[in-house]
Amino acid sequence: MIAEVHASRPGGRTARVRADVLAAVESELAEHGYDGLTIDAVAARSGVHRTTLYRRWKTVPGLLVDLLEAGADDAWGPADTGSLEGDLVAVNREIHAALTARPSITQAVIAASFRTTAAADALTRFWEDRYERTALVVCRAVARGEIPGGTDPHQLLLTATAPLYHQMVLLRQPMSRDQADQHARIAAASVR
Amino acid sequence: MIAEVHASRPGGRTARVRADVLAAVESELAEHGYDGLTIDAVAARSGVHRTTLYRRWKTVPGLLVDLLEAGADDAWGPADTGSLEGDLVAVNREIHAALTARPSITQAVIAASFRTTAAADALTRFWEDRYERTALVVCRAVARGEIPGGTDPHQLLLTATAPLYHQMVLLRQPMSRDQADQHARIAAASVR
Repeated sequence: MIAEVHASRPGGRTARVRADVLAAVESELAEHGYDGLTIDAVAARSGVHRTTLYRRWKTVPGLLVDLLEAGADDAWGPADTGSLEGDLVAVNREIHAALTARPSITQAVIAASFRTTAAADALTRFWEDRYERTALVVCRAVARGEIPGGTDPHQLLLTATAPLYHQMVLLRQPMSRDQADQHARIAAASVR
Repeated sequence: MIAEVHASRPGGRTARVRADVLAAVESELAEHGYDGLTIDAVAARSGVHRTTLYRRWKTVPGLLVDLLEAGADDAWGPADTGSLEGDLVAVNREIHAALTARPSITQAVIAASFRTTAAADALTRFWEDRYERTALVVCRAVARGEIPGGTDPHQLLLTATAPLYHQMVLLRQPMSRDQADQHARIAAASVR
């Protein structure tokens, strides 16, 4: 999905260590925020020795960057509901769930991106990748003849998804799932 | 405007000291970010003694909160262009200018809001006030018979303005002024 970050967990010992470490980073970040994220806490939670963490990830920003890069490796794609409106509603529901989760890893990663340039750059790349994948909902709608071929996927996805982030992250106000659905519908109607 | 923060500068010695201090806070914040904002630097730049700063504002977050509260005191209102689309374009151009300014006080204040709860709360109140004032463009459009009476002002303003913040603040990507105009037009069309 666009908003959530999950390390994939393929086989192999190195991959398992990485998965354990990144799962611990997610949990620590969600529970204590970026200020509470330490190599020692990740070591304790993951059961991976701190010397391994220092050797492979070096710093706390290094851990965060790897968490976002692991998210970019996964197999996520937008749900195929058969209509543009349905697809956008599904995307917005994923974002809504990620931003309202308590604790929210997405909110924690966004906050961390204002603390370190490495995290900001990694989050930018992560979202670029997610929005590119989500553009598939626009291609499918064009292929079905639902919307014109010249539709700008990024503009459409911004119209649908930006209100959720702005309201819940920057304005720091609640938004109901119905309101999130409504923004998906406004976006779909804007290109018909 | 919704995005920019400016201390008003009424008469009286206390008011002048406040205006000088907040102007220095703006400049320091824009040039060095929240991490570079110190009482000493504000004292040097404003010519106001540091003991006065400590007595009246106490801390760096205290300065930032007062900057945002001063913004809430000013006489800002949305431009009246005669049409909903024109009014929304004008609002989006102000936000676009504030977010693309180099340095951008707005970007610096947003970043600071992820560092301290006091700044986050003050920014939330500041924006609440700005969006409430901007709702006037919706009332005027209803009064002109341009859009239906039941139109939700906040939903409409989110549709218009959120893409600018999401793209330029969270996704950290450029957006042209034409694209900002376009999101104002999409929002206006969504309620016709």
